[in-house]
Amino acid sequence: MKYCVDTKENDNWYIGTEKFNPQAIDKSETVMFQGNGYLGIRAAPEEKSLCEKRDMFVAGTFDAFKDEVTELPNLPDILNIRVKINQQLFSLSAGTIQNYQKYLNLKDGELIHKFDWLIADQKISFKFSRFISMSDKHLFVSKVEIISKQNDVNVQIVSGIDGQVSNSGTQHLVEGDKRLFDDKIMQFKEQTQQSGIKFIFNVEHKSYIDEVLLNNKSNIKMNRRQIFDNYDVDLMKNQKFTFVKYANVYTSIDGDTEEDDISDVSIQDMKKNCLFNYAELLNKSIRAWNTEIWQRSLVEIKADDNKPQVAVNFARYQLAANTPPDSRMNIGSKGLTGEGYKGHTFWDTEIFMMPYFIFTMPEVARNLLRYRYLGLDGARKKAKSNGYQGAQFPWESAWPTDGEMTPPWGSVDIVTGKPMKVLSGFLEQHVTSDVVIAVMEYLYATEDKKFAEEMGYEIILDAAKFWNSRLEWNDEQKYFEIKNVIGPDEYKEHVNNNAFTNFTAYWCIQKAISIVGLLKNSEPEIYDELNYKLNLDDIYQDWLAKVDLIYLPKANDNNVIPEDDTYLQKPVIAVDKYQSTGGHAKIFKDYDLKEVDKLQVTKQADVLLLIYLFEDMFNKKIEKANWDYYEPKTTHDSSLSLATHAILASDLHLEKIAYKYFERACEVDLGTHLGKVTQGLHMGATGGIWNMVVEGFGGLRVLDSKLRIEPNLPKSWNSLQYQINWHNSLVRVLIDKNKLKISVMGEGIKFINHDKIYQVQANSKLELPISDEVTVEKENDNN
Amino acid sequence: MKYCVDTKENDNWYIGTEKFNPQAIDKSETVMFQGNGYLGIRAAPEEKSLCEKRDMFVAGTFDAFKDEVTELPNLPDILNIRVKINQQLFSLSAGTIQNYQKYLNLKDGELIHKFDWLIADQKISFKFSRFISMSDKHLFVSKVEIISKQNDVNVQIVSGIDGQVSNSGTQHLVEGDKRLFDDKIMQFKEQTQQSGIKFIFNVEHKSYIDEVLLNNKSNIKMNRRQIFDNYDVDLMKNQKFTFVKYANVYTSIDGDTEEDDISDVSIQDMKKNCLFNYAELLNKSIRAWNTEIWQRSLVEIKADDNKPQVAVNFARYQLAANTPPDSRMNIGSKGLTGEGYKGHTFWDTEIFMMPYFIFTMPEVARNLLRYRYLGLDGARKKAKSNGYQGAQFPWESAWPTDGEMTPPWGSVDIVTGKPMKVLSGFLEQHVTSDVVIAVMEYLYATEDKKFAEEMGYEIILDAAKFWNSRLEWNDEQKYFEIKNVIGPDEYKEHVNNNAFTNFTAYWCIQKAISIVGLLKNSEPEIYDELNYKLNLDDIYQDWLAKVDLIYLPKANDNNVIPEDDTYLQKPVIAVDKYQSTGGHAKIFKDYDLKEVDKLQVTKQADVLLLIYLFEDMFNKKIEKANWDYYEPKTTHDSSLSLATHAILASDLHLEKIAYKYFERACEVDLGTHLGKVTQGLHMGATGGIWNMVVEGFGGLRVLDSKLRIEPNLPKSWNSLQYQINWHNSLVRVLIDKNKLKISVMGEGIKFINHDKIYQVQANSKLELPISDEVTVEKENDNN
Repeated sequence: MKYCVDTKENDNWYIGTEKFNPQAIDKSETVMFQGNGYLGIRAAPEEKSLCEKRDMFVAGTFDAFKDEVTELPNLPDILNIRVKINQQLFSLSAGTIQNYQKYLNLKDGELIHKFDWLIADQKISFKFSRFISMSDKHLFVSKVEIISKQNDVNVQIVSGIDGQVSNSGTQHLVEGDKRLFDDKIMQFKEQTQQSGIKFIFNVEHKSYIDEVLLNNKSNIKMNRRQIFDNYDVDLMKNQKFTFVKYANVYTSIDGDTEEDDISDVSIQDMKKNCLFNYAELLNKSIRAWNTEIWQRSLVEIKADDNKPQVAVNFARYQLAANTPPDSRMNIGSKGLTGEGYKGHTFWDTEIFMMPYFIFTMPEVARNLLRYRYLGLDGARKKAKSNGYQGAQFPWESAWPTDGEMTPPWGSVDIVTGKPMKVLSGFLEQHVTSDVVIAVMEYLYATEDKKFAEEMGYEIILDAAKFWNSRLEWNDEQKYFEIKNVIGPDEYKEHVNNNAFTNFTAYWCIQKAISIVGLLKNSEPEIYDELNYKLNLDDIYQDWLAKVDLIYLPKANDNNVIPEDDTYLQKPVIAVDKYQSTGGHAKIFKDYDLKEVDKLQVTKQADVLLLIYLFEDMFNKKIEKANWDYYEPKTTHDSSLSLATHAILASDLHLEKIAYKYFERACEVDLGTHLGKVTQGLHMGATGGIWNMVVEGFGGLRVLDSKLRIEPNLPKSWNSLQYQINWHNSLVRVLIDKNKLKISVMGEGIKFINHDKIYQVQANSKLELPISDEVTVEKENDNN
Repeated sequence: MKYCVDTKENDNWYIGTEKFNPQAIDKSETVMFQGNGYLGIRAAPEEKSLCEKRDMFVAGTFDAFKDEVTELPNLPDILNIRVKINQQLFSLSAGTIQNYQKYLNLKDGELIHKFDWLIADQKISFKFSRFISMSDKHLFVSKVEIISKQNDVNVQIVSGIDGQVSNSGTQHLVEGDKRLFDDKIMQFKEQTQQSGIKFIFNVEHKSYIDEVLLNNKSNIKMNRRQIFDNYDVDLMKNQKFTFVKYANVYTSIDGDTEEDDISDVSIQDMKKNCLFNYAELLNKSIRAWNTEIWQRSLVEIKADDNKPQVAVNFARYQLAANTPPDSRMNIGSKGLTGEGYKGHTFWDTEIFMMPYFIFTMPEVARNLLRYRYLGLDGARKKAKSNGYQGAQFPWESAWPTDGEMTPPWGSVDIVTGKPMKVLSGFLEQHVTSDVVIAVMEYLYATEDKKFAEEMGYEIILDAAKFWNSRLEWNDEQKYFEIKNVIGPDEYKEHVNNNAFTNFTAYWCIQKAISIVGLLKNSEPEIYDELNYKLNLDDIYQDWLAKVDLIYLPKANDNNVIPEDDTYLQKPVIAVDKYQSTGGHAKIFKDYDLKEVDKLQVTKQADVLLLIYLFEDMFNKKIEKANWDYYEPKTTHDSSLSLATHAILASDLHLEKIAYKYFERACEVDLGTHLGKVTQGLHMGATGGIWNMVVEGFGGLRVLDSKLRIEPNLPKSWNSLQYQINWHNSLVRVLIDKNKLKISVMGEGIKFINHDKIYQVQANSKLELPISDEVTVEKENDNN
């Protein structure tokens, strides 16, 4: 594996770099992103730099700029610290830099940036440290330590709040009051233009020489959207100047404070936090990371190379840093790590990130699903506006009740020079199934009846209503079909009977039928309530009448399931040279979208994704045949594709190929290619890393409500251990070369392994030998 | 004189610099501003730089961001050209720079930026050239010439339109279509948020190797608010690569094209312009500069030092570059040179820039006054909303009909840390007199009866109605007074009977009375029309009854006219250390506004400005006594102060002092202090340079309708020649050590010199010997 960051052999939590290039945005800004789910800041430098993308977002604070869809506003820069040494502005592009190091401690969430700066006969040692607190969601603390190693110098610092930022030019925020409280706390207020969300930013500084607190009189300067304080200190050789910046951010939608009180509360909290020093506040945060994240999501890989462990730590770090602690919000496809996709949520959450949360933090999974429940009205509006019934979930969603948020226009067609219409909001309808898939997996894993009755059933039933109304009768073929959609393979617009879409629609209606049956029998009151809301009595008959007439694309003579009605009739081209690891869309250098549409080229796992998610619907022969058919035709232009391929390859015991896909999938963000690095991380791919390790190599799967554990440990790993929640138990799974060991804390569980059902009693263990018959199966290619 | 730019002894039109500091915005961005009155661009570099302020504005395109007053939107950057040499991004902060030179040719309006860049064993010679056309207001053309002096190199260029710019964070523009026409013209459309003004930006490139046109296929990239084309060229050692960027800008309020047609027209114009090369288009522009500006505004100073001539050329250049060719627009106090004061127009135009236009381009002066006529409704609205009658002109104005545009909040009080209320919009009422002063001076100089009857009289009469309604009866003193105003000395808020305000209000009403008398007698039809509009019959009687009861602050026993009712009773402090040349507001480091209010400290010429403008109302003794009193108490924190002081000192034959003030006034923008350099130029001060030379040393003045020419040639000057329009004639005035020579082209004229009236016949000359009795008068101080 080749990462864009360095790792350390003896440290599974270190990602760092000792190179710096002031001429280009390096990827560290994105991969070293810091956040706590509420607040997120890219790892841009404190000092301004020519090539940088500094973004700060608060989850859920969506706003629409005139005529645009809503997005997360890029918030005022609280990171900035401008340093002058003897009047010379510090910049990495001036002078000479030695001993450069920038690294993120994934375990503690602390980012360090240190180096010696040689300029005009001075040698100045800089160390910048910072973190966003995991124990106080509003709090950001940073610190600069400066030592002059050759002479006495004068140090000047300008630091504060800089609201002269925007979303690539688009400004969501209206400037409000700027104030100075108690001659030390700078406060800046802003408000979003359209959604009227109020923001409060506070900053207080403390400075020290050799740990002795200095008593600085404030010397503030305010400009448009800016408030800065100014410091001027004479520093003797080898003295250490320490400058600590405390900042906090509050909004009117935080939910934990009355809107009228947020300014007071924010000031009080600032005062309380300022009683502690940097290290004390960092330690509080570290404790929260340990108890809330690391202890609950344990994954341990024993191997000579620790890069896989770093990758899974990175994934868990980013999932924690980017998941809002509020069920009115969801995870953006880029989290809070960049402006890409405007902070919007896609199916990435349900299909690629949800397994992690379901199995390690089910209450977070529940929050994420509640978000969809809160979005039902928007989904109903969307269905209605398209002439359908029930709930059609938005392809892109932001504030849950706002409904569809896919922007109408996308990138540019190379042939016509015109921007292309984004059809996903209209045609990529499988997202409605994806939500149901996640709800069902959550219910299987947690047996959370309360959630099912309060929210889950309603989501499923209304989704089934949508699909039922979406079916079109084909009088020639005498079946119901689904025409004019985009499947997971987004290269193909306006296709009929996309396999993934038809199968999952059918499955949704089936699930709905079972739920109605179940409720009528065992929970008549709940049935009545839902019937009153959704008019189930009528629709139920319709479902029963139609469900078996839904066309499910059948495997052909070669066992290949057609991706859609026309795919298999199109010309085949060599796709190798267009396959990528995030370098995205190489194929569009040679073909435009209309041309790609006419070829057997697939953007990402489509039929293969269906087989991965619904393994029990297809036999092994079909699984293998479709792998052999589609895998060579897939470009992986979506970051969601590689992990699915890794898991399927592992399932098929294509060990080398699986591991190669695993490595490539880890490299989606951690790799060296730059791609659209300023746009942010691929959160679906971080979920994919956990999925590959736990579901793929770890063999965890839920198959129609049942737990299966059937690992395929990679040859280069000595062991793999992970912990999951299943029903009311914590289950620890250890896999090594010889055995599979299942330890249960809590109630007993059942699981399937190689078609046998095993039972582990409450608070006990079970060991199975690893049968090696499958791992020696011959791989049939040279990958 | 010490300028921030270098000048050349043998070139009166050169301002340049051979220093560069990539760590700081240097003043060259502001003083080397380019514009044609319609379009203006700061002299920021083509390549992005860490410390820069790139602004482009189109006059009059005001828009209000939510809850703010209107301002000129900073428009998409069409300047940008990003160059990579062998993959290394060109930046002045990387590598080594040799032979650096940046200069503006004031005569031709061409900006050159050239240097050798040494990087990684390469030596690359760069020459950037650019101009905004004076003959085609929409057109901007720039050129880069690149020669590799040591090796063959690869050159990559990215250039296009970058809309990711804002007004210090505030975004006025809504993104529109991005298109590529004919595989070569990039087009980007935007629209202002509130005012709905549409913008079209087009860019086309041509590139050459050794003058041979290359045939590049376009390779465009579009991002949010951005469209760029990409070029990749292999260049042999000593070959010259030339890259020419043609750009144009159109708006829906241009007035010369139907709104629906602007896209077509802009594309057609681009195609037409692209038939010409850089030099040809530049030559067309140069011809326009010559015929429209230089030939009409002649000022020639013969002296050993050519800095005064450079200053007056600089002033005329900036006045031309910043004056909109459209009477719906006016000159901003910062022109189009920066975001300062939001593009708004103040009294600076009428009092400090108008003389230049009245005497050299009366049709421009007429446009500027017509702007006030178009603003009458806004002025009436303002008067009405304040409970007054007539027209109260806005302190800050933007689109003429929008009325008062002073933002409610200004900079921060150092004591409370809170932003201070800007009272000028409410209290700085003398602007209404200032408009009348300019109208009268225009009418005296041009005898433009048509303007008077169509617009001028109405302005004056309605202004007088305002003042009449503004008077308050003081029953104790038995006079009418004007309480609670801010005079030109803005340190003093809420003063009563500011001398400047009372005198000019009185004078306005007097003028109105004369006009009514004149019209009743000689133009009864026009009177009837105005009477119908303004109800003059009633108000006229009121004027007559009140005018002589208006309190005009009287000179005290020491001949000092009190600036207001309380000024002379306040403590006096030493002001020397707070006097500045644009380094602004030093006094606020020691006092806040409330404290300064309680001292005999004056921001700028106030009583002295009154005496300068209405010399015939005051005798020489009073003039001298007030100079002696107020001059030492004035900080010159306003850029409008120094020129007035220079002229008055010259009038008082304080030659050395006058020259010192002249030098300092030239340094307001051209000097070395940085001040708020990114905010833009001081247009009033550029008017002041012409005023000092022509009105001050050249002795030109209009005193109650009569032309006076009474020069005081500085000792260090050999001669001064200038040309003015007077009535229907062109008058050339030559002053040297011995004589004053007046040459008239056109009808004969009369003028006053030392209380004698002289007459010059049509198309003839008159010579007067310079009496030296006055210049030997002893100066009574050591300045």
